[in-house]
Amino acid sequence: MSDLEAKDHHGDEGIVAHVITTGGELLQGHTLNTHPAFLAQALWDVGVEMTHQVTIPDSEVIADEVGRAITQADVVIVTGGLGPTSDDITRECVASALGVGLELDPAVDSVIRSYLERRGVSVRAEQSRQAMVPQGAEVLENPNGTAPGLWFDGLPRDGVRCRFLAVLPGPPRELHPMVNELVIPRLRSAFGRGDAEVTDVLHLIGVGEADVAAAVDGPLEAIDGLRHGYCARIGEVDVRLIGKREIVDRGREVVTRVFADRLVAAGGLVPTVIRLLADRGWMLTTAESCTGGAIASALTDVSGASAVVDSGLVTYSNEAKMRFLGVSKQTLDEHGAVSDETCREMVLGALEASGSDVVVACTGIAGPTGGSDDKPVGTVFIGVGTRGGNVDVERCLFLGARATFKQRVVVKALDMVRGAVGRCG
Amino acid sequence: MSDLEAKDHHGDEGIVAHVITTGGELLQGHTLNTHPAFLAQALWDVGVEMTHQVTIPDSEVIADEVGRAITQADVVIVTGGLGPTSDDITRECVASALGVGLELDPAVDSVIRSYLERRGVSVRAEQSRQAMVPQGAEVLENPNGTAPGLWFDGLPRDGVRCRFLAVLPGPPRELHPMVNELVIPRLRSAFGRGDAEVTDVLHLIGVGEADVAAAVDGPLEAIDGLRHGYCARIGEVDVRLIGKREIVDRGREVVTRVFADRLVAAGGLVPTVIRLLADRGWMLTTAESCTGGAIASALTDVSGASAVVDSGLVTYSNEAKMRFLGVSKQTLDEHGAVSDETCREMVLGALEASGSDVVVACTGIAGPTGGSDDKPVGTVFIGVGTRGGNVDVERCLFLGARATFKQRVVVKALDMVRGAVGRCG
Repeated sequence: MSDLEAKDHHGDEGIVAHVITTGGELLQGHTLNTHPAFLAQALWDVGVEMTHQVTIPDSEVIADEVGRAITQADVVIVTGGLGPTSDDITRECVASALGVGLELDPAVDSVIRSYLERRGVSVRAEQSRQAMVPQGAEVLENPNGTAPGLWFDGLPRDGVRCRFLAVLPGPPRELHPMVNELVIPRLRSAFGRGDAEVTDVLHLIGVGEADVAAAVDGPLEAIDGLRHGYCARIGEVDVRLIGKREIVDRGREVVTRVFADRLVAAGGLVPTVIRLLADRGWMLTTAESCTGGAIASALTDVSGASAVVDSGLVTYSNEAKMRFLGVSKQTLDEHGAVSDETCREMVLGALEASGSDVVVACTGIAGPTGGSDDKPVGTVFIGVGTRGGNVDVERCLFLGARATFKQRVVVKALDMVRGAVGRCG
Repeated sequence: MSDLEAKDHHGDEGIVAHVITTGGELLQGHTLNTHPAFLAQALWDVGVEMTHQVTIPDSEVIADEVGRAITQADVVIVTGGLGPTSDDITRECVASALGVGLELDPAVDSVIRSYLERRGVSVRAEQSRQAMVPQGAEVLENPNGTAPGLWFDGLPRDGVRCRFLAVLPGPPRELHPMVNELVIPRLRSAFGRGDAEVTDVLHLIGVGEADVAAAVDGPLEAIDGLRHGYCARIGEVDVRLIGKREIVDRGREVVTRVFADRLVAAGGLVPTVIRLLADRGWMLTTAESCTGGAIASALTDVSGASAVVDSGLVTYSNEAKMRFLGVSKQTLDEHGAVSDETCREMVLGALEASGSDVVVACTGIAGPTGGSDDKPVGTVFIGVGTRGGNVDVERCLFLGARATFKQRVVVKALDMVRGAVGRCG
């Protein structure tokens, strides 16, 4: 946790935030509460550490929790319960915790009414509840919904620690822009970072978080004024660097020196592969067995894929491998569907069938059945070939559940495409 | 929220649980905290409502929060901080909140040592910290790690509301089995449900949660002794029914009567489609444009897919639609790639090219660009055809981000396969 302590910016205790998320749906187990992770990252980027996060129903408990949080934290963020219905009582609870009244703000009321009218929604009387504003609060406009946010800079109550209190709507598509565009800039300027601080995110592919940490934790911690952290996904690790521009650049050099060949551009692996292909005007075809289309699907998750993805041939059965890719029956009989030889023929067959410039192919054993001593569950052969160039096949062993296995193959396959295309000038 | 109140089993207030999850990694935004959703569902199945959930670091705050929770809730669950290192202090904090001491349990110590020795891990002295047990606690064995859980049936402190306190390890692969196998059965028997209660989950496809609730909430609430709840995913809703066998069967009849054609078998849509195909010995091929392989990938996420999935032809470019599926240039020129006519030719072309018994095809505009007045972003044509049978094409409009759009097309396409194959006897 030393990466998050940010000791350079404040005392031992630091600037801390308490986050209160409200809503019965968050307590019923049907909706995964993603607000804490989102808010923690946003706060951390401006040097504020989330040290307490509580989820409670839309009930009077909100007033208790707000009352408690404002005595213990510098920044308090409350989400949810700002809608127009009778169980949306966050506004009232906050006012009660602060010991202030609520007043109808006619300007806010008219913004809400015109928002609804533009969308052809009839304006109900209870909608005006959303225009009730506690004394001392500034209204934060909500371009993505009717519930405005509330912002307190200094609380109208003595003897509390809290300097900033934000009350924000619960739906992520309303919450996220409001945090990014209104809350974080205010906190950034309040805590004296100004515009001088930047955040860089470096994307590393095909290396584990523990290995990254072991290699760069020491050197990064030795750079005065730099904070860093990691975010790991399957087969990928993001390294976040925060500090003044020149300090972050020094951190960037450290990571680049160790992991030059693992580093992909902003946006991550898929956009990097798409850009590399687009730069060359190349089209790609996938020839997938064990991933069942997941490589092509991952590429087409990104807008712009149509410029570089020609096609994908998902040849799950041996029949399909022969029919669509021209894999020979003899190869399948002698070496098996999961083999270097079959993978190589899949690449060559797809290059020929598609006319594409690059092909990536894979064939493996996703499990839980189908493994042998020779080729246990998790074995996969991944091949990449370019028109008129070589075919490279790698054998890998990826353990884990079926979905994890597929995702690891997808990342490795796209990383091999990145390498092969990158080498072709 | 009426679905979760379980008024039939206890008073207005109900049996409530407070959940305390500890660990700095849960507060840094890098790890999504999935414990609350998991525990809420598990608790709800035995009639216990999670009304308060807090996340805090591995610090003395744990003692404060435990002290507070035991005065307010019937059941308190604490996760995390049971490891062998010095920042794992949950054991000590719980003991302090209860006002009891800790003692080394030699039997637990020897279980931990043999667990490590079996795995060839050298036993460090601090490992014995994990064998320290607060007075009054029962030890819950952990077959998946070294940290045992702790269970209090009745607390060694007066004047508290809490009857059951569970202290459990943080890693999901250790936590989940311990909850499912040790904690939930104890709570079930304590709260008098015995083995007589069952939980059925009904999977509905292609209908929204609000529509399901509007149709069945009333009738289900009228059944005495039945509790129900919903879990919505993109294009799918699960209805959970809990109560005595005959009571749950009555609830099942209500749902079945209204949504007979929307109901799929246990496991959900993909296993249902695979089973329908396997029953007939049929093979399927997909012909995908806008989903980029996601339909084939969804099918192959499930073990057993290889018996029924022959292949997938991801024809992202017009070139590929002509080359692999024989879509005519004239059709593409006259009607466009996103059209009923193109979709129909994709189905017929894939039936011919693959030799499969069933083909599902789709072509649409995932966005954010590419829409027109006629065919806005989100427009998609989905077609299903069987060998020697008809081709049915439906035009749909699915709004939402690219990933949401793709997932909704996948669900609709598989649902159309289910319908078409089901109709073929």
